[in-house]
Amino acid sequence: MRYSKTFIPTLKENPAEAEIISHRLMLRAGFIRKLTAGVYSYLPIGLTVIRKVENIVREEMNRAGALELLMPMVQPADLWMESGRYKKYGPELLRFQDRHERESCLGPTHEEVITDIVRKELHSYRDMPVNLYQIQTKFRDEIRPRFGLMRGREFVMKDAYSFDVSDEAASESYVKMYEAYKRIFARCGLDYRAVQADSGTIGGSFSHEFMVLAENGEDTIVICNDCEYAANMEKATVVLKEPADSAESLPLEKVETPGKRTVDTVCEFLGIEPRQLVKTMVYMADGKPVAALVRGDRQIEKVKLTNLLGATELEMAGEQEVFDATGVPTGYLGPAGLKIRIVADQEVAAMKNFYAGGNEKNYHVKNVNLGRDFEVDAVADLREITTDDPCPECGGRLGLTEGIEVGHVFKLGTGYSEKMNATFQDKDGQEKHFVMGCYGVGVTRVVAAAIEQHHDDNGIIWPVALAPYSVVIVNLGIQDEVINPAAEKLYSDLLAAGVEVLIDDRDERPGFKFKDADLLGIPYRVTVGKGFKKSGMVEVRERRSGETKEMAPEEAIAFLQDRIREQLQ
Amino acid sequence: MRYSKTFIPTLKENPAEAEIISHRLMLRAGFIRKLTAGVYSYLPIGLTVIRKVENIVREEMNRAGALELLMPMVQPADLWMESGRYKKYGPELLRFQDRHERESCLGPTHEEVITDIVRKELHSYRDMPVNLYQIQTKFRDEIRPRFGLMRGREFVMKDAYSFDVSDEAASESYVKMYEAYKRIFARCGLDYRAVQADSGTIGGSFSHEFMVLAENGEDTIVICNDCEYAANMEKATVVLKEPADSAESLPLEKVETPGKRTVDTVCEFLGIEPRQLVKTMVYMADGKPVAALVRGDRQIEKVKLTNLLGATELEMAGEQEVFDATGVPTGYLGPAGLKIRIVADQEVAAMKNFYAGGNEKNYHVKNVNLGRDFEVDAVADLREITTDDPCPECGGRLGLTEGIEVGHVFKLGTGYSEKMNATFQDKDGQEKHFVMGCYGVGVTRVVAAAIEQHHDDNGIIWPVALAPYSVVIVNLGIQDEVINPAAEKLYSDLLAAGVEVLIDDRDERPGFKFKDADLLGIPYRVTVGKGFKKSGMVEVRERRSGETKEMAPEEAIAFLQDRIREQLQ
Repeated sequence: MRYSKTFIPTLKENPAEAEIISHRLMLRAGFIRKLTAGVYSYLPIGLTVIRKVENIVREEMNRAGALELLMPMVQPADLWMESGRYKKYGPELLRFQDRHERESCLGPTHEEVITDIVRKELHSYRDMPVNLYQIQTKFRDEIRPRFGLMRGREFVMKDAYSFDVSDEAASESYVKMYEAYKRIFARCGLDYRAVQADSGTIGGSFSHEFMVLAENGEDTIVICNDCEYAANMEKATVVLKEPADSAESLPLEKVETPGKRTVDTVCEFLGIEPRQLVKTMVYMADGKPVAALVRGDRQIEKVKLTNLLGATELEMAGEQEVFDATGVPTGYLGPAGLKIRIVADQEVAAMKNFYAGGNEKNYHVKNVNLGRDFEVDAVADLREITTDDPCPECGGRLGLTEGIEVGHVFKLGTGYSEKMNATFQDKDGQEKHFVMGCYGVGVTRVVAAAIEQHHDDNGIIWPVALAPYSVVIVNLGIQDEVINPAAEKLYSDLLAAGVEVLIDDRDERPGFKFKDADLLGIPYRVTVGKGFKKSGMVEVRERRSGETKEMAPEEAIAFLQDRIREQLQ
Repeated sequence: MRYSKTFIPTLKENPAEAEIISHRLMLRAGFIRKLTAGVYSYLPIGLTVIRKVENIVREEMNRAGALELLMPMVQPADLWMESGRYKKYGPELLRFQDRHERESCLGPTHEEVITDIVRKELHSYRDMPVNLYQIQTKFRDEIRPRFGLMRGREFVMKDAYSFDVSDEAASESYVKMYEAYKRIFARCGLDYRAVQADSGTIGGSFSHEFMVLAENGEDTIVICNDCEYAANMEKATVVLKEPADSAESLPLEKVETPGKRTVDTVCEFLGIEPRQLVKTMVYMADGKPVAALVRGDRQIEKVKLTNLLGATELEMAGEQEVFDATGVPTGYLGPAGLKIRIVADQEVAAMKNFYAGGNEKNYHVKNVNLGRDFEVDAVADLREITTDDPCPECGGRLGLTEGIEVGHVFKLGTGYSEKMNATFQDKDGQEKHFVMGCYGVGVTRVVAAAIEQHHDDNGIIWPVALAPYSVVIVNLGIQDEVINPAAEKLYSDLLAAGVEVLIDDRDERPGFKFKDADLLGIPYRVTVGKGFKKSGMVEVRERRSGETKEMAPEEAIAFLQDRIREQLQ
């Protein structure tokens, strides 16, 4: 491609609208332009990168035996009512009426549509396994779209859905996708982790998120420094390090704590450690109050609590709600004598003779003991993991890092097929529900994540697999009788060798061209300038390392072909 | 691809919902499934064909120097208000409010968005010409979607927009696209015509439609049997064959025509020919009455009249409206003494001493003459062309045929750039409005049109360029120790030779497999069956001609490669 014939509107200044690096660089490098909140046009060079990701995804999906189709973006509400999601899904589901006043929506995901297709077309166990996917523009009406392609309202996604005869077969389909995803993100040149994840609102029995490690990640993930373990905070399992306290129970005792309502002030006042205290947190679980107990120096992990309670909505109770439910002002709540449902973190169950609120203003109690002073409905891992906890897999050291979710694999089970009555005839002649899985890759998000991971002060540094062009030729003598033909010959020779190459044939200053080349992030730059007139050599520079080499044009072609081939898996 | 591993749900029966051949065959061959009115899922084999069309379109657009981008489907209403189309566009424009109550719409076309991008990013005459295109799923809320992919609500379209510095340069861009479109439809293997067309609601100064000739076409087109001329009925120019009548004007005379209100009854009663009579048709042009005169044996072409009047809406006046405007009951209207605006077809202006309504119940008049008895505002070509008219280009014989519009090229001029204030700085330092063109290909419609043109009673007959697979191997001995390995070897050899091949490895009867192969429309079928065991020969059959040949597998590979290469331009 000739720079003079394409449309790459680079910006010299940082645009005010951009909050994170990938957003800023994509605007500056002429990859995208905003149309309206969370909705972007993909300009030619940006679309080229998106297509690279799509092609890698497509190749790996096909290699895994999945079949590509394309489902509609406009969907009838009926199907969403069947699955129960028309009500359940928030305002992210953009609903509207068409000209005939039929309730419709813009599909943010396609479980309903694919289940409808499959229940009509697949009837026998012989038809399975089947995995159907699409690469499509989706719309999700985010309340606060931000960060460019990172959290847009309109975005490109690959979504796949597997249908199997049994839970076992569904696990095999899941593993195939898990492996395909590993290949996808490795081929994209990304440093990523597959983390055990909570399956969120889609519901389902098991899931992994694929996270690109980057500073601007929205998610915090727990990784083990000694093994492959990685998990979302919500999912990371806390292993009890210490055995249950075997001390003898001491008599319950009331202690006055006038005006001391926080862990810190109570501990300071009583001269104890937060680990000797138990916090009593009241939540409203689908409108009903429930108290969760956790050690004073720990934090409740809301998703773990939600899952334990099987709640659809879980919110911290407000002061008034707490008082209405318990008769106790916040700050003095404790398990002993509490009249509402109680669940406890596993650590609390192992404690003896602890401190807690006295269920009376200005009082706490000491020597509280589970079993003697109160009972709980359930004991479970309910707290946030910390880097002091051991790795649940190997006992090794844990670390926290930020990640950007770019892929997600779910084992869905029979949730959708039951609600939508999607069945097949099994070997034994019985009608059974399809066991489903679903698998997403945020295609446009991969592009943003790649930039978050690969950039420097001068611009993007594309992995070769995603680069819009592998090579940019900077022609520094478009009017020169020696330089210009040499640059043009190099251009056509590289094209003939199958190299994706951009030639900067604009009538601009060298510095201007070099800046754009760096900003666009092209992996290799070849400069044809005055040096060529003297020595017949061109300068080859690697964007990532900044290393330069002088070589003859023919040598450069061979060198570039080798380097590019090496980096494409 | 293995038939057993893909998902091609063919139907043995004709589906009730299908009204035309392409719709029926696409459902039967497992290409598409309906989700809701005018909205279809493209199943794997259907998507493969759509992608073939997309790739041909993309290659030819790129070859013509156009640049691919991708604009959003969700658009803010603001831009449509700027262009004035938010009100003007009918309910086909699906409008909705997002969660923040921002007025939005689903883009059926992208003139506004692209003009917005260009006015922000292109500032100088040096940046032009530029032609930007996208291949995208569009939504148009048709009141009566029908015929499957032929007139759906959601469909895939390629839309391109050119920006030029002058009308002359815009004409060059137009010609480039015109030529690219000719290559596109020729490569798709379609019998088509580029016809001069009315530019319809998009507005603009010049346009051609690309029509695939087929029996189920929605449009009637005029083609010359002797030259390349082709035009829509609305646009086909009538050339006056006969010179103006030079007879002397005779005195105007009232004739009684009791109860005779139609051309036929008046002529019969008076013993004259319809060509001696002038019809006076009253229309409401944007709410105002206007009379159009045309010879008794001719029909007014509404689009020609609309264009002459520059009207936005034009409807035949009702009886009451006619009476209110003229005081004359319908059936007796004539130009002489009429009080409303009058325009005349050119043929009328050449007539002398004709008959017409007398503007009085039960009366006509004879010897009416333009200039003496009435005046007109304008004389123009206002009537429908007939096959008795000569070709306007070569004078040759015209024919009428049916066509399916698959592409459209428009020279838009400065309509959008003026309304949206999109300007660039010209050589002379002046700010000027971009001169635009727009160019569409109905990608999914091309697929339907190809089937309308290429099918027989047994199914589709794909042109090789659009075929989902070039070859289908029918393995008639999947349990056979000789046949099965031979069929499998042929499969892998063809794959290795770069041939797109489907192997029917299902455990089904031969007739069942042959029927599916015909239905799917694969251009070449290779049968490996009992014959192979006897003679080592396979049977190669061409779908279109039905011709079969026996040959050795190696010979078949070479034969197929040759035939496929021949047919791909």
